[in-house]
Amino acid sequence: AAHGARKMEDYGRFLALLASALLVGFVSVVLSLVWVFQYRGGLSWDGSSREFNWHPILIVMGFVFIQGIAIIVYRLPWTWKCSKLLMKFIHAGLNTIALILAIVAIVSAFDFHNASNSPNMYSLHSWIGLTVVILYCLQLFSGVAVFLLPFAPVRLRAALMPIHVYSGLTIFGTVIATALMGITEKLLFALPNFSYTQSPPEATLVNCLGVLLVIFGLIILWMASRPHWKRPPEENAKILSPVGATPEGTEAESTMTNSGNADKSDPRSTTEAARKENIKFDEAGQRSTM
Amino acid sequence: AAHGARKMEDYGRFLALLASALLVGFVSVVLSLVWVFQYRGGLSWDGSSREFNWHPILIVMGFVFIQGIAIIVYRLPWTWKCSKLLMKFIHAGLNTIALILAIVAIVSAFDFHNASNSPNMYSLHSWIGLTVVILYCLQLFSGVAVFLLPFAPVRLRAALMPIHVYSGLTIFGTVIATALMGITEKLLFALPNFSYTQSPPEATLVNCLGVLLVIFGLIILWMASRPHWKRPPEENAKILSPVGATPEGTEAESTMTNSGNADKSDPRSTTEAARKENIKFDEAGQRSTM
Repeated sequence: AAHGARKMEDYGRFLALLASALLVGFVSVVLSLVWVFQYRGGLSWDGSSREFNWHPILIVMGFVFIQGIAIIVYRLPWTWKCSKLLMKFIHAGLNTIALILAIVAIVSAFDFHNASNSPNMYSLHSWIGLTVVILYCLQLFSGVAVFLLPFAPVRLRAALMPIHVYSGLTIFGTVIATALMGITEKLLFALPNFSYTQSPPEATLVNCLGVLLVIFGLIILWMASRPHWKRPPEENAKILSPVGATPEGTEAESTMTNSGNADKSDPRSTTEAARKENIKFDEAGQRSTM
Repeated sequence: AAHGARKMEDYGRFLALLASALLVGFVSVVLSLVWVFQYRGGLSWDGSSREFNWHPILIVMGFVFIQGIAIIVYRLPWTWKCSKLLMKFIHAGLNTIALILAIVAIVSAFDFHNASNSPNMYSLHSWIGLTVVILYCLQLFSGVAVFLLPFAPVRLRAALMPIHVYSGLTIFGTVIATALMGITEKLLFALPNFSYTQSPPEATLVNCLGVLLVIFGLIILWMASRPHWKRPPEENAKILSPVGATPEGTEAESTMTNSGNADKSDPRSTTEAARKENIKFDEAGQRSTM
């Protein structure tokens, strides 16, 4: 009973964080729309500053919000009954949408600069921003090639997974840092006579947008880095389980309730080790059935 | 022999990354000095923009470089023979130095603004920067109270450690993001007539400083997040080891060579679990001998 209560408490905490992330992300998108429509003249695609206005909207909606959701999509407990392959398609699909929106966002900035004869690629924002879009593109292609397509050997997948996770999380963090630079730059350029220093309502609104982007990033990074919120291994892994393996269902429980430390001192860790070994067979099996 | 070779290779990789971090950090400090002395009139403490010049120097030197070193100080293999308590003092000491330098850096910015009747705290840089200094302060005090002083129960230490690590790494990342905003702001304010857009040598130099800060952060975060580069548990933990525990010395080896995944499927994980249990006793022992 105590175990069940702990499990429910932990599940409730996960849902509360997910709801916070969705709320903060949604409000961020709304603030970017208010900024553009209330203060910056709305949207168009004509080389004017209204074309540039697509830039913050698409970055906040795509490169921050959708990328953030793509990162935690494996963590949603109600998707654990779906096949891992389906979840990989959703993860890759969301990241593809985010990449396309980020590219359109960059095009809108270049178009605007070119139409007004402003230079491109002079700012730290542009240097890091373009680099991170290219790295995101490489991350997406290498991720599809190694983890989604059925060609990569299990050994390569295992070796690249920690790098994939590290790159994914640091790219996401760098995107948010780049967005903060973009906000700083735009408020200094767009407000007349450096009136950013006078805290007009627009500046306060957009500063709040920046703060929300940081909070969104912090929530996503917390959810993504808790080991006990990881998706449990595939069901069919258990077909291969040795004698003494835990019965079906309990894995998900232990994954949901144990903390990272407790997990390591779990007396069942020999069974755990056997189970992890089986994941490899499962991965291989999944590949061969594609 | 193959095991030994793998171990040496991994140790070499660690040293190469450490050398890269030190080099990138050192060059960042040099670039901040070149910026200030070559382009911004040098240093003073008189309310002029030369007082403000302490701000980027102290942030790069203290809040980025020293904080980064403080984060990975437990990972240096040659410190593993030192007591954990000594290393905690070094970790806390470096973070204290970084905090003091960050506070002086903030004071220099406020002094400069006040002397020139410029407003304070209007920018996103200032909002996030001040918040992160306050959080860093709380992190340092709570870290000393829980992990360094001998009062906190083992259970509390274990519960707070994942939060301490998460806060430490995200504060570090946010500091770098804030520095990037600061660079953007300063280049737009300081270069006459928005000539940032014309890529003068100063702008290129300082953009490069920003890129180096990002690279420094990425190296530190990689080193800090590899489980196999963690400091092995205390020697005296082994006094309490049960029958079947690994002999002295081999723990450090397995910690250095196994990847995160391999570690979990280690057939010795029952022994590992017993060992981790002992860490608790060791922690308690360390506390009682203080």
